[in-house]
Amino acid sequence: MQIETPPAERRSEKPDGERRGIVLVNTGNGKGKSTAAFGLALRAHGRGKPVKIFQFMKVPTARFGEHRMFEQLGIPIEGLGDGFTWKSRDIDQSAELARAGWERARAAVLGGEFFLVVLDEITYPLIYGWLPLEEVLQVLRDRPRHVHVVLTGRRCPPEVIEIADTVTEMGLIKHAFQAGVPAQRGIED
Amino acid sequence: MQIETPPAERRSEKPDGERRGIVLVNTGNGKGKSTAAFGLALRAHGRGKPVKIFQFMKVPTARFGEHRMFEQLGIPIEGLGDGFTWKSRDIDQSAELARAGWERARAAVLGGEFFLVVLDEITYPLIYGWLPLEEVLQVLRDRPRHVHVVLTGRRCPPEVIEIADTVTEMGLIKHAFQAGVPAQRGIED
Repeated sequence: MQIETPPAERRSEKPDGERRGIVLVNTGNGKGKSTAAFGLALRAHGRGKPVKIFQFMKVPTARFGEHRMFEQLGIPIEGLGDGFTWKSRDIDQSAELARAGWERARAAVLGGEFFLVVLDEITYPLIYGWLPLEEVLQVLRDRPRHVHVVLTGRRCPPEVIEIADTVTEMGLIKHAFQAGVPAQRGIED
Repeated sequence: MQIETPPAERRSEKPDGERRGIVLVNTGNGKGKSTAAFGLALRAHGRGKPVKIFQFMKVPTARFGEHRMFEQLGIPIEGLGDGFTWKSRDIDQSAELARAGWERARAAVLGGEFFLVVLDEITYPLIYGWLPLEEVLQVLRDRPRHVHVVLTGRRCPPEVIEIADTVTEMGLIKHAFQAGVPAQRGIED
């Protein structure tokens, strides 16, 4: 380990532009894309801001740890799908669900009543061609100026990254799965 | 955008090793290191697991959005420091605070009463040489087998990455600050 001298001055200048809603993207193969979006929703809600979370690849009845907590806090979280595609019995039905879900998410982003809208795992219906990419881009561009939107999922389309303000690539350095440790309740769900 | 065929089968094999507590690291220059740790704490707490969050670079009185929510949920979160070093009036005092805080964190990790212990921004006191790296590594190695630990912060020492199970590099692709958009309440704090 290299020892560093603690910085005595803040390194970055404070941006002097206007405050406005931003588009955030959490992509990459590493862990933390959705949990970081949830942490952000928690933070915004804690500041008294109205927040809404849509999950494109979760079933409406999902009761993971985060769902239980968001329910307790009064943060609305809505599963729009029927699980990952290998669990789907009818892929056309999955695509149809995604489109119906998108109509709800679209209305929430454009409606302006939310400070922050999370579109969790929206990259999958996009890259499967289930959602119209151009329309998603247009909704992000047309949203009210104060609305923040977070999009998560692997392999985010470059067109979305292009119009986003803050993009984080969660890179997989290593994962406990690789060492044979199975998924665990409270860590993975 | 490249359209993909939705996978009809789960790509990865299910690991068949033993369930055990893991060490997770969220590092890199991108956004989402702490918020992903908070999302994980939320998830674990939602599964009824005891969780404790220590923050090495926050003051004990910090009242960011996440603190307000964790308080409401009964998730203990403790600021151990006096803010980032450029806010410090006495750097020796900051180092002393970090060492005193580490004693508390150490006891929590070794005590075994927590399912998950978050050591938020612990990389800074490590790379400033305020905390004994070898001792931190030894505590991670010696912890009870069921205890999960999450460490966050930039420039994580390679020795910590070496013994970690799951490591995510939050890479900065772009940030709204670069476009001149200032930090905003509910997004950055």
